[in-house]
Amino acid sequence: MKNIIVGQSGGPTAVINSSLFGVIREGLNHTEEIGHVYGMINGIQGFLQDRYLDLGELPSGTLNALRITPGAYLGSCRYKLPDDLGDEVYPLLFEKLKALKVGYFFYIGGNDSMDTVSKLSRFAAKAKSTIRFIGIPKTIDNDLILTDHTPGFGSAAKYVAASVAEIGLDASVYEAKSVTIVEIMGRHAGWLAASSVLARKYEGDNPVLIYLPEVPFDQEAFLSQVQESLKQRPNLVVCVSEGIHDKEGRFICEYSGEAGTDTFGHKMLTGCGKYLENLVKERLGVKVRSVELNVCQRCSTFAQSLTDAREASMAGSFGVEAALKGETGKMVSFVRASGPNYGISCSLVDVNEVCNQEKTVPLGWITKEGTDVGQEFIDYALPLIQGNPALPMKNGLPDYAYRK
Amino acid sequence: MKNIIVGQSGGPTAVINSSLFGVIREGLNHTEEIGHVYGMINGIQGFLQDRYLDLGELPSGTLNALRITPGAYLGSCRYKLPDDLGDEVYPLLFEKLKALKVGYFFYIGGNDSMDTVSKLSRFAAKAKSTIRFIGIPKTIDNDLILTDHTPGFGSAAKYVAASVAEIGLDASVYEAKSVTIVEIMGRHAGWLAASSVLARKYEGDNPVLIYLPEVPFDQEAFLSQVQESLKQRPNLVVCVSEGIHDKEGRFICEYSGEAGTDTFGHKMLTGCGKYLENLVKERLGVKVRSVELNVCQRCSTFAQSLTDAREASMAGSFGVEAALKGETGKMVSFVRASGPNYGISCSLVDVNEVCNQEKTVPLGWITKEGTDVGQEFIDYALPLIQGNPALPMKNGLPDYAYRK
Repeated sequence: MKNIIVGQSGGPTAVINSSLFGVIREGLNHTEEIGHVYGMINGIQGFLQDRYLDLGELPSGTLNALRITPGAYLGSCRYKLPDDLGDEVYPLLFEKLKALKVGYFFYIGGNDSMDTVSKLSRFAAKAKSTIRFIGIPKTIDNDLILTDHTPGFGSAAKYVAASVAEIGLDASVYEAKSVTIVEIMGRHAGWLAASSVLARKYEGDNPVLIYLPEVPFDQEAFLSQVQESLKQRPNLVVCVSEGIHDKEGRFICEYSGEAGTDTFGHKMLTGCGKYLENLVKERLGVKVRSVELNVCQRCSTFAQSLTDAREASMAGSFGVEAALKGETGKMVSFVRASGPNYGISCSLVDVNEVCNQEKTVPLGWITKEGTDVGQEFIDYALPLIQGNPALPMKNGLPDYAYRK
Repeated sequence: MKNIIVGQSGGPTAVINSSLFGVIREGLNHTEEIGHVYGMINGIQGFLQDRYLDLGELPSGTLNALRITPGAYLGSCRYKLPDDLGDEVYPLLFEKLKALKVGYFFYIGGNDSMDTVSKLSRFAAKAKSTIRFIGIPKTIDNDLILTDHTPGFGSAAKYVAASVAEIGLDASVYEAKSVTIVEIMGRHAGWLAASSVLARKYEGDNPVLIYLPEVPFDQEAFLSQVQESLKQRPNLVVCVSEGIHDKEGRFICEYSGEAGTDTFGHKMLTGCGKYLENLVKERLGVKVRSVELNVCQRCSTFAQSLTDAREASMAGSFGVEAALKGETGKMVSFVRASGPNYGISCSLVDVNEVCNQEKTVPLGWITKEGTDVGQEFIDYALPLIQGNPALPMKNGLPDYAYRK
């Protein structure tokens, strides 16, 4: 009888613990094939320091609470395994796995984590180890290839859409002309910024302008677009991805450092939202503010998408089943059912093909002026934000799972 | 038979429309005494331009949706009536009210709005008008006197507590030492920043340090407190009110403008959170980030407190009943039941005593070092964040009420 070990890696999301829940529950269900379900504390990095715990010993309340708890219950790391599979860390790691009688290794994470799964599975093949390695995807950025979408994106998209809708209501209470610039996560891919379109309740509603990193940003064009839009409605909400850049590839947020210094004499780097706020104030003289949605995008329980949480858990379960069937070196991927009704089934893809690739918003889904996304995006994203979780509450807040 | 007119004024909240709902429903219920329930568009300012609507004509779906819609459905204004009751605007306004056969005037707002109610009721007495003027309190800042708390505060406090809890989970995923500074609304009163304490799940949990404007802020003491706290736990969440200031009364956010200039050569004013982020980076060399909770604090539907929404509606209803009984020049206030069980009843206070006053957090509720609040605050605030609204949903988001 072999054991499972599972780890979390990279930035946290609202549902990365739902995938952990899926792995644990599925693992514990297979009492004839699986002994223990271990969790690495702080991913590979912590495991190399022998930090792990037995997840079978979690109280059922904690296990259930994982489904609504953001962050990463096991802790995370940003540890990159050496490219050289001859490095001494590999035999060391496999010794530790062997000592724990691990037969199945699951890593929940994004691009870099899939790189880890790729390397470990390739080393296993070389070393003739029978340990199976499966990647469970997660990233709010939705930038993994070979999967319809990634767990974590739906909840972040829902947070963005709800917040932009509410900021739009908040911004429209006064009569005076105003511009509100909302800066949304996504350095290289605009999936999250594009999700702000889901806040639009009718044609012409906010957000009126949406800028993604997929299209080069031109600040003069931006200023005319803002000015033009202010003729249509007095209160403008403009959504920008943090990663917008000009046609030379220079990030707009880097513009702020040109002449700016902070109190300590350092280059003052603000986000692109703050930069554009100052630009609009300077050039258009209109009332303007910027809002950086910040980390709340990836960790809001109230705005969690039930669809996302369920799919995240399903990805974890499916990974365990796949490993038990003998699969290794694979990432769990989502396949969308064709036809009008939304449905997702799990499949497996070669993890070597996934890692170090990046999926961006198709240019055909972005309008010609580069200031909006079309119906294709809405059809794609809308099913992913459906459903609210039933939240176990304690002291007025969701009853989160946590390690002290 | 007389008509009602109701307006909203000042900054929006998550439940200001619940109070509007309360006024409308109560007004429409009194079919024998009340003809129409009118709403001023953009408060007094819009009404002076004859902008109003008949709220009895709202579809019932819209009326119900008001209870979960942030912003201000009727629009708001920041219009201050002249101190001189002899000003020509008063007879003009009363002419307009008379033309609409208004007998009862309700204004939902904070300090400045109560000033409006005070002036209008005093002018009415002078001019021997029988129109009755009642203020319905609202402000996320909770800084109105003569009421246990204000509608709007509970939902904002719940948003702050949930967000800080989630930011704490997010911040604790890595092993490296880190400081996260969360900047919370409240220029002069620390009620909202203090509410971050409700995020603490056990002794020693984040937020470890909480700074309010009620206590002078000393940046050297702050740096030692951060350094000391980092010995207790690697991931520190520090909550600061936007209005913290030094013992000379200078806002900490003003420090950022000392040497800082932006790309356009202007003084670079950041919030105090960003300033403290730079300070910690410079002086302690530790990984640090800042998060400004920003307007989402006052407009989140998902984090709405059901207790707050119900009380806001109750305040609206009570105001209508009071006016029908002949009251004028009053603000609806909340009285908390004594004893262990939370309960609120409505009462009336002289609006002249409320306006232009400010209620801050009692110094006795703040710990000696000025870095935390005590159990008194928790006992006070915890009942106010209880309960989640049942949200009518549309396209994955709350089905907000809005005027195009």
